[in-house]
Amino acid sequence: MKTLRDIGEDALIGRLIDLVPRDPDPAAGPGDDCAVIDQGSTTLQLLKTDALVEHVHYLPDAPARSVGWKSVARVISDFAAMGGRPERFLITLALPPETEVAWVEDLYQGIGACLGKSGGVLAGGETSSVPSGSAKVISIAATGSVLRENLVLRSTGRPGEVLLVTGTLGGSLAGKHLDFTPRLRESGWLVSHFKPTAMMDLSDGLAKDLPRLATASGCGFIIDQNALPLTPGCSPEQALGNGEDFELLLAIEESRVVELLAAWPFAEVPLTAIGRLVPSSTGQSLTGGWEHFKEGGSSVNL
Amino acid sequence: MKTLRDIGEDALIGRLIDLVPRDPDPAAGPGDDCAVIDQGSTTLQLLKTDALVEHVHYLPDAPARSVGWKSVARVISDFAAMGGRPERFLITLALPPETEVAWVEDLYQGIGACLGKSGGVLAGGETSSVPSGSAKVISIAATGSVLRENLVLRSTGRPGEVLLVTGTLGGSLAGKHLDFTPRLRESGWLVSHFKPTAMMDLSDGLAKDLPRLATASGCGFIIDQNALPLTPGCSPEQALGNGEDFELLLAIEESRVVELLAAWPFAEVPLTAIGRLVPSSTGQSLTGGWEHFKEGGSSVNL
Repeated sequence: MKTLRDIGEDALIGRLIDLVPRDPDPAAGPGDDCAVIDQGSTTLQLLKTDALVEHVHYLPDAPARSVGWKSVARVISDFAAMGGRPERFLITLALPPETEVAWVEDLYQGIGACLGKSGGVLAGGETSSVPSGSAKVISIAATGSVLRENLVLRSTGRPGEVLLVTGTLGGSLAGKHLDFTPRLRESGWLVSHFKPTAMMDLSDGLAKDLPRLATASGCGFIIDQNALPLTPGCSPEQALGNGEDFELLLAIEESRVVELLAAWPFAEVPLTAIGRLVPSSTGQSLTGGWEHFKEGGSSVNL
Repeated sequence: MKTLRDIGEDALIGRLIDLVPRDPDPAAGPGDDCAVIDQGSTTLQLLKTDALVEHVHYLPDAPARSVGWKSVARVISDFAAMGGRPERFLITLALPPETEVAWVEDLYQGIGACLGKSGGVLAGGETSSVPSGSAKVISIAATGSVLRENLVLRSTGRPGEVLLVTGTLGGSLAGKHLDFTPRLRESGWLVSHFKPTAMMDLSDGLAKDLPRLATASGCGFIIDQNALPLTPGCSPEQALGNGEDFELLLAIEESRVVELLAAWPFAEVPLTAIGRLVPSSTGQSLTGGWEHFKEGGSSVNL
């Protein structure tokens, strides 16, 4: 019998989504960063769920406050990736009975700190026990919103457009994956001033995520590995494959790039052109990046 | 150090919710079946999250299709409890890599069957690995909707009102907990014809849930244990304490009860008066019912 170890996450999802009723008229593809709900008003609703698993997304000795921060920051990063903002959060904790109450309180302190900084609020949640010895699971679901004219999908890039990333890539395991700041401010500025043609956040590594954006847009891609903005101490391979950068990857018309780079107001968060979209039958391929299940439950792919 | 085993779920939640920003003007209390979002239109949005954990909410040999059905039926039951309907679902799976692909496909078949019957649709989801040997966790988040005039809270019962339950109580472990039908139809009829003053669904057992409704309403309660509608083969103690009935518990003005019982159109789902709300300083207390963490991760409390 085939197990999840034998197939990747993308292949699994592809086999599952045809088994259930789906929105007959979704406002975004099923593979985008969030689900997009069009209720006919000037604002679209965003829906997102994301889980953190002990030993997989964080190690048992990670500070609980940082784990809490990360759990909601990942979701906020997805809202930012579509040009939106976070609103209401549902927190589901599945914890073994030996978990210390103080650990859970620290977790919630981190959740509260990140929500407070981003404008999200707690709307509800659930706690459940898991058998003693099982990994802790923190599952976050949230609603967000985006002005209709600000929505950016990952599927609307076109050949010839320039690819850019915010921040630096690589080195997530050195600590960045626990204390990153979602690029909400940068996304808000971009959609107001230089709306990207396509955007996503980098959660599984550029090597994994860039092909997703290109494929969703019906494109190929070329990147200049020498142009990658490296986190100090990281190699280009680590920048491509470490994962959990939580930076924005975006495409924009070539004619606007010089003006965008000149206007970029966030001195401490670089914005770097790394390549371009090309017709789908051309371009490069990349290897590396984080793949669920195939890693056998270890931490991120190095 | 105090662990989750030492305190109950309600006490834990009470300690946590003050640590995070909350909706400054919620349309329902934080302890109700769903979060209620008032965006100013004739329809209110409902938000709910709920998790199923292997060994806790189902046993490893339970059919995956039934586990999938149960995972979304529980959430639909919560929407029904507020007079609402399900809309969009986000499915998060945290599974060990040795999980068979066929098991996950069967799970999704069950999810699809229950969504198809209730009118809900899949809007998104996530899959993540958990370490080999850890319990499977299926976390469901969903949006629903309720007409403003149909919303029923658990906090709005008043002394003197009669308490009723749908269906029969007890015996969940004999199988009912895996194949129950959420009382969506019955709830829809009630809010249109005999709107309850307060309502909730019975997930942790009448002994646990009735005090929650009474307390939220600022009331006490008395019930006639001889009046409890027992699942065949069950004792009153089991009807009070087994949990996972997923029936509706509702309060209604005494003057309307006779007419309600005469008009009740669902012959195969009994509606039974079991007691009444009384002033808060009077009434009974109950013991039993399912308590997370204190059970140490075993299955439901018998």
